[in-house]
Amino acid sequence: MSRKLTVVLPALEDFHRDRIREAADRLGFQALFFDSEAAAVPELAEAEIVLGQSAFLAGHSPRVRWFCTPSAGVDHLTGEGVFASPDALLTSSSGAYGVTIAEHIVMVALELLRRQADYSAVVARRGWERGLPVRSLLESKITLLGTGDIGQEAALRLRAFRPACLTGVNRSGRNPEGRFDRVLPVTRLEEALPETEVLICSLPATPETRRLLDARRLALLPDQAVLINVGRGSLLEEGALEAELRAGRLHAALDVFETEPLPPESSLWTCPNLLITPHVAGNMTLAYTRRRIVDLFLENLERYAAGEPLRRLVSRAQ
Amino acid sequence: MSRKLTVVLPALEDFHRDRIREAADRLGFQALFFDSEAAAVPELAEAEIVLGQSAFLAGHSPRVRWFCTPSAGVDHLTGEGVFASPDALLTSSSGAYGVTIAEHIVMVALELLRRQADYSAVVARRGWERGLPVRSLLESKITLLGTGDIGQEAALRLRAFRPACLTGVNRSGRNPEGRFDRVLPVTRLEEALPETEVLICSLPATPETRRLLDARRLALLPDQAVLINVGRGSLLEEGALEAELRAGRLHAALDVFETEPLPPESSLWTCPNLLITPHVAGNMTLAYTRRRIVDLFLENLERYAAGEPLRRLVSRAQ
Repeated sequence: MSRKLTVVLPALEDFHRDRIREAADRLGFQALFFDSEAAAVPELAEAEIVLGQSAFLAGHSPRVRWFCTPSAGVDHLTGEGVFASPDALLTSSSGAYGVTIAEHIVMVALELLRRQADYSAVVARRGWERGLPVRSLLESKITLLGTGDIGQEAALRLRAFRPACLTGVNRSGRNPEGRFDRVLPVTRLEEALPETEVLICSLPATPETRRLLDARRLALLPDQAVLINVGRGSLLEEGALEAELRAGRLHAALDVFETEPLPPESSLWTCPNLLITPHVAGNMTLAYTRRRIVDLFLENLERYAAGEPLRRLVSRAQ
Repeated sequence: MSRKLTVVLPALEDFHRDRIREAADRLGFQALFFDSEAAAVPELAEAEIVLGQSAFLAGHSPRVRWFCTPSAGVDHLTGEGVFASPDALLTSSSGAYGVTIAEHIVMVALELLRRQADYSAVVARRGWERGLPVRSLLESKITLLGTGDIGQEAALRLRAFRPACLTGVNRSGRNPEGRFDRVLPVTRLEEALPETEVLICSLPATPETRRLLDARRLALLPDQAVLINVGRGSLLEEGALEAELRAGRLHAALDVFETEPLPPESSLWTCPNLLITPHVAGNMTLAYTRRRIVDLFLENLERYAAGEPLRRLVSRAQ
C-alpha cells in the first residue's frame, strides 16, 4: 500500500500540483489533491502527510504523521483535541508571507502618515483641499514587535526610507541578520514604546503574546503614534486601542482582530483614525506566496522522506 | 538704501524665517516676510530677491534680479510676459520634493497592485471578502520616466522591494548615481513601454514632454500595467488614459492633471481603476520639505552674494 500525501489547498495552480506530484512520486508517496475539505475526508483516513489549512482536516486525519499548514500562524491548530492523531508533527509555512506582508506594512504606514483616508474623503466629494499636514518615514522612529520573517522583510524595505531608528523587539534580544539598528528583549518593551512613532506588530497568538499591548502599554506610546497589526488580534486589548483612536491620540491599521470575521455590529467599523483590512496582508492570492508555500513544503518533504528533522516544526502544546 | 529680500511663503515656520533673516543680515540684505501676496505688493517694488511661488509675484517685482520659487516645477513662471523684470534669474527648488514624492509613489503603487480601493469598498460595507488577486513589487518591471531628484529617490526605495528591473528613461540616457539597472534615452521610450508593469512619471511640463504619453504610446503598455503620474498633467493624453482605465486594461494613480483643480464636471472623478489625489504628492506640509526649500535657498543666497553662478537655474524661455 502506497504512502498517502493528501493536499487540500484550492489556491494551488496546476504547475504547483505537478511539482508536488513529481517529488512525491520520486520519494515514494502518492499525492492526492482536493479543492474541498469535504471531498478529502474519505482519503484523510489513510493520509500519512497532509498539506492543508484547517483544524477540520487535522481532526479528520487519524493516521497523519506530518501535518503542514500553508499558514505562518498555527494558533488554530494548537488547541487541545484538535488533532485526531496524537503524535503528528506540525509544521508551519513561516517564511512564505514576509514579502507580501512587508508590502502591506509599508503601504498602510504611508497611508496613515500621509493621511490618505482624509484625502480620499476630499476626492470623494470632488474637493481640492491640499493642506493637510503629512508625515514621513524619513527620520522616523520605528519599532518592530516581532523580528521573524515578516519583521525582517519589513525592516529591509523600511530601511530604504531612511528612518531614524529601526528597533526590533523579540524574546531573545538577538538581532537576526543585523537587520535592525538594535533589538530589545520583550521584557524591555516598555522602554521602547515611549520613543516609538511607528509600531509594527507581527507576533503569533501564544499565551505570552496575549494582551501584550494592553491599555497601560498603549498609553506609553507618544501622541500621534501609528500602530500596525498584521500578526494576531489577541495581541491587543482592542477596546483600549479603540478608545485611543476615538480620542485622536493614536492612528492604527489593523488586518487582524480578536474575532474574525470582524462582527457586523463591531464599533471598530466606524472608528476614526483606523484603517481596517479583512485579514488580507498575507493573502495567498499573490503568486510568489503560493510558490514559497510549495518550496517550503517540498524542502520538508525531502527531509521527511530522508528521516531528517523537519524545519518550521512547531509545538502543538502552546 | 539696503538691498531687499522679500519672502512670501506662508508655510514657513518661525525658525525658518530666523535662519533666512540671519543669513540675509550677514550678507547685507534686509529680509521681509509676508503671509499674503497682496500684503507683499508694496514691498515688491524694491525687491532685489524674491522667494515665492506665483506668477503674480513675478509680475509685481519690477526690479527683481533673482526669483526663487519653492516649487520643483517652473512651468507657471516660464510663459511670455510673466516677469515684470526682463532679466531676472529664475531658480527652482528641485531637490526638495524627492523624498515626499517618492513615498507617495511607493504608497500608490502598492495601493494599486494590492487592490486597496477594492478592499476599502469591502470594508465600507462591513464585508469580509478576502480573495481578490493581488500583485507585488517583487520581481516587477518598473520604468521611471524622469530620473531627477524624484525618480532617483523613488528608485532608492523601490530597489528594497526587489523588483526584476528598474529602468530609467531621460533625455541623455545617462544613469545618475547608478540608481537604475539601465537608462534609456527618451527616443527609445517605445522600446521600454511593452515590458513595463509599473510606469512612474515625474517629468516637468515642457514643450518636449507635452502629450509624450499619447494614445498610441499608452497602447504599448501591457495589459494591467500601472501608471503613476506625479510630474505634470500635460504629459498625458488624459482622454486616452481614461479610455484605457474604463476598459479595465490599465490602472493609474494621478496626482496631476491637464487642468487643476480637476473641474467638478470632469469624468475622471468617477473613472474606475483610477486613484486620484489633489496634487499633494509634494506638499509643503511635510517638515522635511520645508527645511530643504530653505536649505537650497540659503545655499544659493550665499552664491548670489558672492557673485557665483546660482544652482537650479532654469531658463525662463522654455
